[in-house]
Amino acid sequence: MPTGLPFDDIRTLLSDLPPLDTGAVAAIAARDATLTKPPGSLGRLESLVAWLGAVQGRERPVIDRPVVTVFAGNHGVVAQGVSPYPASVTQSMVANFGAGGAAINQICGTFGLGLKVFELALEIPTADITVGPALEEAACAATMAYGMEAVANGTDLLCLGEMGIGNTTVAAAIYHGLYGGAAADWVGRGTGVDDAGLARKIDAVERAVALHAAHLGDPLEVLRRLGGREIAAMVGAILAARIERVPVILDGYVVCAAAAVLHALDARLLDHCIAGHRSAEGAHSAVLARLGKEPLLDLGLRLGEGTGAALAAGIVKAALATFNGMSTFSEAGVADRADDSGR
Amino acid sequence: MPTGLPFDDIRTLLSDLPPLDTGAVAAIAARDATLTKPPGSLGRLESLVAWLGAVQGRERPVIDRPVVTVFAGNHGVVAQGVSPYPASVTQSMVANFGAGGAAINQICGTFGLGLKVFELALEIPTADITVGPALEEAACAATMAYGMEAVANGTDLLCLGEMGIGNTTVAAAIYHGLYGGAAADWVGRGTGVDDAGLARKIDAVERAVALHAAHLGDPLEVLRRLGGREIAAMVGAILAARIERVPVILDGYVVCAAAAVLHALDARLLDHCIAGHRSAEGAHSAVLARLGKEPLLDLGLRLGEGTGAALAAGIVKAALATFNGMSTFSEAGVADRADDSGR
Repeated sequence: MPTGLPFDDIRTLLSDLPPLDTGAVAAIAARDATLTKPPGSLGRLESLVAWLGAVQGRERPVIDRPVVTVFAGNHGVVAQGVSPYPASVTQSMVANFGAGGAAINQICGTFGLGLKVFELALEIPTADITVGPALEEAACAATMAYGMEAVANGTDLLCLGEMGIGNTTVAAAIYHGLYGGAAADWVGRGTGVDDAGLARKIDAVERAVALHAAHLGDPLEVLRRLGGREIAAMVGAILAARIERVPVILDGYVVCAAAAVLHALDARLLDHCIAGHRSAEGAHSAVLARLGKEPLLDLGLRLGEGTGAALAAGIVKAALATFNGMSTFSEAGVADRADDSGR
Repeated sequence: MPTGLPFDDIRTLLSDLPPLDTGAVAAIAARDATLTKPPGSLGRLESLVAWLGAVQGRERPVIDRPVVTVFAGNHGVVAQGVSPYPASVTQSMVANFGAGGAAINQICGTFGLGLKVFELALEIPTADITVGPALEEAACAATMAYGMEAVANGTDLLCLGEMGIGNTTVAAAIYHGLYGGAAADWVGRGTGVDDAGLARKIDAVERAVALHAAHLGDPLEVLRRLGGREIAAMVGAILAARIERVPVILDGYVVCAAAAVLHALDARLLDHCIAGHRSAEGAHSAVLARLGKEPLLDLGLRLGEGTGAALAAGIVKAALATFNGMSTFSEAGVADRADDSGR
């Protein structure tokens, strides 16, 4: 892992963001109006193409190198009995990704998406957030910098995913830390914890947020104290994508915790992101509302790994295919609607 | 077009439907429980696989020959000024499908779906439903029989689509004829009719249903009197798929009019169908509620051509890929959840 930027350098990056390309959006709307379909009839597919163009700064957006990046981390808070699975499953699932046996591998194969796994010091779990900060500042910043590599190699559509036993607990702590309310408002069953486990999870989130209460005015401190390595890395990935003009598809409950940290710093930091899906993890709808994102899909998923984002990428690819591949009315010799509508 | 079956022979087909395969569903659930993911975490993807298995009668469902069939017809009711586009656009769009320039071509290309267009006597529009029945019984039955060919050639997933200037008007008439209420409850803007056109459309539907009011107790008479060739052909296609155990993805407002005719005959005739999406055409939500179908996607589409069904097929393919391609816990050496959940 490279030496990270201190938080001050991260903050400097935030101040110089490229604008969305309104010229590209206008050009896309002009071409869209000539395509062989009634105006507006492709609904959200049309707005997806406009979004791609605005972010990429291209009148003809491209998806030549779409990739799903899965960030994996381990969490000291599992000592609090917050997951039905042992922490060793994080490492095993990383091996499963490598062997092509996980759900995300199959979805990537179906839609022609690359897959890259970022394994984040799995042998050194973050500190238990109920007893101290998850990470030191240098480690947190270094992990963010490492996550920035997600946009390397010409990626032109980035789907974010994660794996980490215990990470719905730290995500809940981040939401509770950023948004207040009660711990129970933000805690869900994750991979399927029973009632007793859910009570332990709520208790752990409550104690963690109480412990760090004096330091939660700064979103980067919320990340460092209540987060984890995969979440810090995804903060870096989203930020780098914003700077490098790479459209991002967010996955579910845990990925959105990284997005929420950036959103709390400056809502414009998510201008290049869409929400791939609405997770079945309880509080995700409330999180999406806070982020101002309407999810593309709503399929009851709660797996993580980027599965919801990858499914959404299939829709985004289809949207772009319609825009780039359809004939215009004049090319196809199709009569456009009469000026006197209805006659 | 082959000689059709008279309605009596169609009715005979309805009486001997293959059951859904509950054994396959049980076997699929058993395998699903061994896959490297928390139980239930793939949400609707899991139920899609169960549906495929139940319909196909396979413990390992297959999607080797998915196809989108687009049925195209013309309608005498366009004389009532119900569409902003001239009827000639139906033929032009059929040519556009053939040339690969329509939206549906691009979506089929993205997801590896075959495309077959059924051109239904475009030069002979059906009779204007405001002045008489759309079709004679022999022609209606022949068209249904022709539509049954949609499941030929080993199709193992059928997505239904349509094209026909004026066909949102006849679909509205079918809904008004089957479900009652006011004409305005069922009429939408279709390809984008203005206020005056909408008023003409409502008036036409109202007059058509009033004209045929004495004959609307029989859903096949509703089809014959208020429908059109593409809708009759889709009734045949859905029925043949039910008999041949081919899973069907319905598209939007017009395709569901064909489904509604069968549903009114016997709800079990749609056991093999899912709703691919919720159309932006106003009454589609009410129709889906009547059919008891929760749509897979909700993307604001209102184009037809099977575009919503084809997008949904991408999701269905991904669902099956996860089921068939994922490793089991034992294959991957991943620890399953502890019996003592949460510890």
